[in-house]
Amino acid sequence: MKEFGELFQSADWKQEKHSPVIDGPDSVKKGDFANYSVSVGKEIPHPNTTEHHIRWIEIYFLPEGAKFPFQVARFDYTAHGESTEGANQGPVYTSPYSCFTVKLEKPGVFYATSYCNIHGLWKSEKAISLHD
Amino acid sequence: MKEFGELFQSADWKQEKHSPVIDGPDSVKKGDFANYSVSVGKEIPHPNTTEHHIRWIEIYFLPEGAKFPFQVARFDYTAHGESTEGANQGPVYTSPYSCFTVKLEKPGVFYATSYCNIHGLWKSEKAISLHD
Amino acid sequence: MKEFGELFQSADWKQEKHSPVIDGPDSVKKGDFANYSVSVGKEIPHPNTTEHHIRWIEIYFLPEGAKFPFQVARFDYTAHGESTEGANQGPVYTSPYSCFTVKLEKPGVFYATSYCNIHGLWKSEKAISLHD
Amino acid sequence: MKEFGELFQSADWKQEKHSPVIDGPDSVKKGDFANYSVSVGKEIPHPNTTEHHIRWIEIYFLPEGAKFPFQVARFDYTAHGESTEGANQGPVYTSPYSCFTVKLEKPGVFYATSYCNIHGLWKSEKAISLHD
Ligand SMILES: [Fe+3]
Ligand SMILES: [Fe+3]
Ligand SMILES: [Fe+3]
Ligand SMILES: [Fe+3]
Repeated sequence: MKEFGELFQSADWKQEKHSPVIDGPDSVKKGDFANYSVSVGKEIPHPNTTEHHIRWIEIYFLPEGAKFPFQVARFDYTAHGESTEGANQGPVYTSPYSCFTVKLEKPGVFYATSYCNIHGLWKSEKAISLHD
Repeated sequence: MKEFGELFQSADWKQEKHSPVIDGPDSVKKGDFANYSVSVGKEIPHPNTTEHHIRWIEIYFLPEGAKFPFQVARFDYTAHGESTEGANQGPVYTSPYSCFTVKLEKPGVFYATSYCNIHGLWKSEKAISLHD
Repeated sequence: MKEFGELFQSADWKQEKHSPVIDGPDSVKKGDFANYSVSVGKEIPHPNTTEHHIRWIEIYFLPEGAKFPFQVARFDYTAHGESTEGANQGPVYTSPYSCFTVKLEKPGVFYATSYCNIHGLWKSEKAISLHD
Repeated sequence: MKEFGELFQSADWKQEKHSPVIDGPDSVKKGDFANYSVSVGKEIPHPNTTEHHIRWIEIYFLPEGAKFPFQVARFDYTAHGESTEGANQGPVYTSPYSCFTVKLEKPGVFYATSYCNIHGLWKSEKAISLHD
């Protein structure tokens, strides 16, 4: 039986349309708000149809030396062309691109996870250092 | 007994720190991606503590003349200083600010709803027209 | 422009497959845990396909005489037959039926809201009294 | 840098109050609905306070021999005694206990994941076989 952690796939986002990418500063000022964005399909767009789409992205933060991660945010993308007139006939589609604003008191690592409704769980990470 | 719809409060965001604000174009090109942002506390910051914070913002779209709204996105803000060392001692805080990218095939209205864990449900809206 | 609260539909659950139904005791002991369930399509099952399904149910509680409601729970139903082999070829479907366990310190009203991905927002409510 | 999958802790639920437990049949009839429950703190209750509580449980399903898991459900527990009168003075608390109803077309493994707002991510799993 596979471990749950083994179900997260990862790959170079420049070549794989499912990999989440965290963009933003590598170093931020301690206790100040900093802006980041996260997206799936940054280089190669992922399909966005009623039958096949990116459902969500989550962000976690593991402080340096800490045992437990904190969930920072969760972004659900919920409109993919569904309609009473049939699949892909709807008036609105949401893209898997989000931004988030965080205040950090410690350095650590951001983890992004994402879910394609037919291609499963994906992950990436980005280390953040602090300065005064 | 109050109707559920009556539980959503609204107020001028310039004077009320709980009102969600949708920012972005009033008119977008049909079938093209457009960028919006949504925030709570844009003018007067809302507290962000373990005991009192903005938990989420949701976006809905009601096409012009349509009966049923579509949920566009949901943004959960999940880090508010909680820690094994006690409330407000934690290393990370998430602000209630998000962006979203949507493709519209019809004009209509965006509704933003938000939730403060002690001050309940809030709402605002923004009409969107389309051009070729 | 319609108010957001007007977008929630309601109907007799015995005749309407979208109406959420809260089942459980009308009166509970103050400060004790009590069990409830909530479902959509209790009498007339709602379709569960990749293109058309119940996405979530939420529960809120408005204490008697209070101004602000509290969100109690949110249940996302995320598997609806999607598959790499095409819509409705997948191995798993989740039904819109959930249970929840709550401890109440005040009487009040539970509100259930639910969302069909093509037929929008629905609601119902159930008053709860307390006894010693 | 730790892999994201390494952040999920596991332990015997009879001795560890954070471990999610999936209860229900080991074998179900193919294509029929089956009922399961999932809980955290089944043997040793986890605290439920404004500062420290179980935030959510998620369920995934990996079909036998498949590469990609499917998300089955997500349960958010959102009331933990928060109040305008201060932490733990509120009227409602939600317990980390949920049930789910699923229809399976293939055998496989259910994974439960859960999140304590200060003690991080946890997991467990349960294999399911099918019969006619
Ligand atoms: Fe995909
Ligand atoms: Fe507030
Ligand atoms: Fe429907
Ligand atoms: Fe804990």
